[in-house]
Amino acid sequence: MRISVPATSANLGPGFDTLGLALKIKNQVTIRPAKFHSVSLKGEGSNNPILKDNNMFIAIFNDFYNNLSQKKRSFRFEFENQIPLSRGLGSSSAVIVSAIASAYAIEEMELPKEKLLNLALAYESHPDNITPAVMGGFTVSSVEDNEVKFINKSIPKSLSAVVVVPNRPISTQLSRKTLPYKYSKEDAIFNVSHSSLLTAAFMSENWEMLKIASQDKFHQSYRMRQMPELFEVQKCSLNSGALMSTLSGSGSTLFSICYFEDAKKIEKELRAKFPHFKVFISGFDNYGIKVEA
Amino acid sequence: MRISVPATSANLGPGFDTLGLALKIKNQVTIRPAKFHSVSLKGEGSNNPILKDNNMFIAIFNDFYNNLSQKKRSFRFEFENQIPLSRGLGSSSAVIVSAIASAYAIEEMELPKEKLLNLALAYESHPDNITPAVMGGFTVSSVEDNEVKFINKSIPKSLSAVVVVPNRPISTQLSRKTLPYKYSKEDAIFNVSHSSLLTAAFMSENWEMLKIASQDKFHQSYRMRQMPELFEVQKCSLNSGALMSTLSGSGSTLFSICYFEDAKKIEKELRAKFPHFKVFISGFDNYGIKVEA
Repeated sequence: MRISVPATSANLGPGFDTLGLALKIKNQVTIRPAKFHSVSLKGEGSNNPILKDNNMFIAIFNDFYNNLSQKKRSFRFEFENQIPLSRGLGSSSAVIVSAIASAYAIEEMELPKEKLLNLALAYESHPDNITPAVMGGFTVSSVEDNEVKFINKSIPKSLSAVVVVPNRPISTQLSRKTLPYKYSKEDAIFNVSHSSLLTAAFMSENWEMLKIASQDKFHQSYRMRQMPELFEVQKCSLNSGALMSTLSGSGSTLFSICYFEDAKKIEKELRAKFPHFKVFISGFDNYGIKVEA
Repeated sequence: MRISVPATSANLGPGFDTLGLALKIKNQVTIRPAKFHSVSLKGEGSNNPILKDNNMFIAIFNDFYNNLSQKKRSFRFEFENQIPLSRGLGSSSAVIVSAIASAYAIEEMELPKEKLLNLALAYESHPDNITPAVMGGFTVSSVEDNEVKFINKSIPKSLSAVVVVPNRPISTQLSRKTLPYKYSKEDAIFNVSHSSLLTAAFMSENWEMLKIASQDKFHQSYRMRQMPELFEVQKCSLNSGALMSTLSGSGSTLFSICYFEDAKKIEKELRAKFPHFKVFISGFDNYGIKVEA
C-alpha cells in the first residue's frame, strides 16, 4: 500500500490560518506487513537518525491502527520525502494526514476525505495546511464545531510556483510569540478585505489581482524580521515577474506564484542572488492525498 | 437624461468594509435643462421637505457640473426613490455615484465605471456600498492608494433577498462608536476566515455554505444590541429557511438571502411576527448604475 501527500503553502499573505494550496512536490510512504517492524527513509530528513526512531508518522499510524484493528501486525515503512522539514511547507500536516489515511487503508476501511480532515484536526488545530494536503488545489478553510468547513478550486497549469527554501528554519513557536495579541481595527479590516479579495482572485482566475490582494498586516513582516534576507527574496521575486510572493506558513520558505513561462527566469535570478538558499520550480497539485492499494 | 442606481447591502456579516451586493430596488433621477432650477421628489424621503431643498445629490452634481462645464445652466431634477433612507441599504452611496455620473452624462463626457468608483471614494471612504452600486452583483473591494480594487460576480435568479426594514434607524456614527478599537487575534482570524469562505461561497455558488460563512465577530452583535428585536428577526429568517441573514451595512435593515422558491414563506413569517417593520422580497441587480440618454 502506497500513500502520497503534497507539500502545502499556507496563509498566502493575508489569509492567516485560512488560505492554502498544494504543490506538486510530495512525501510518499510504502507500507507492507512484515515479520519485524522496520523503517527506511530517503530524501528530506534522511540524514537525521532521530526521525527514523522517533517517527511522528509511525506514532500516529499506530494510534489509529491499534484502534481500528483487532490484529497485532508488524510493518515495513519506506518513506520517500520531498517536503523540506520545518520550513513552512506543511511537512507535519503531510505526516499527520498520511499516517491517519494509511491506518485506514491498511485495514481496507473506507475513509472519506472530509472525515480524514476532521480526524487530522485533533493533531493540528489550524486547517490551512491539512485542507490542501487532503483536497489539493487552492483552499479556503474555517473550523466550526471541530469540523473543517472548506471550499477548494483547482489551479491551472498556466501557473507555476517558485519556492525559496532557506538554509535554516524560523521556529514556529518563537514565530507565533513575536505576533501581536490584538490587532487595530484598521489592520483587522485590511486583512479581511485582502484575504477576501485574494480568495476572489483565485476563484475567478484573476491573476493580475494577486499582487495587491496578497498583502498582509497580521504576521508576515513580524516573522520575516527574524530572517531579514527574506524581504530581499520577496523583492527580487516580484521584480523578476512573480504575481505574488508570500511567506509560506510561518516560514522560513518564501513562496511565489508566477505565469508558467516566467518561472525559469525568476528561478535563475533568485539562484544568482541567494546561492546559499535552495530554489526550485514546482507545479500545483489539484488532487491532494492519494492512496494506492 | 435618466440614471438609475441600485440599493446595496454591505458587510454581509464578516466582510466588514469589504463585501457587498446590489439589489433590484433602485433610485432613479431624470434631469433635463430648464429655465429655472426645480426639484420633484417621489417615493422614499418625499415626506421630508428638507431633502428637496438641502439635497446631497444636487450639491455633488453641482460640484462636478461646475468643474466639467463652461456653461451656466439650470435643470429640472425628478427623483423617484425606492431605497429607504438611513437604513443601511446604501442610499447615500446611491446618491453619490448617481450625482457624479449625472454630471458627466449631462455634459456627454465618458466616465468609465472604474473612474466613477474612484471619484465616489472621495465622498465615501469605504468601498463596500459604492462598488456594488456601480458594478452590480456580489462584490469584494479593497482600497489601495485611493483606488478601489474589486472583483465582482453576478448572482443567479435562483436566489432572492428578503429585506426587513425597521421603523427607525440605527445611527451610523453612534453605531461605529459602539465598536471595539482593537480585536483579539482570535476574532481577527475568525473574520478573515469567514469573510474568505463567504467570498469563495459566492464565487463558486456554494449556497449551503452561506450560513456558516456569514458569521461575524467584528460589528454585527454590537450594533444589533441597539435594537435587540433584530436578533429575533435574524433567528426567524434562518428558522424560516433563509440561507444567511445579516445586518445590512450598519443597520437597521436585516438582510437575508434564500432560494427563490422559499422567499414568499420567509416574507410571510417575518410579516406576521414583525408587523411594525417593512418586509419585502427583492431580486439582485447584476448591472449596477445605468445611464440612459
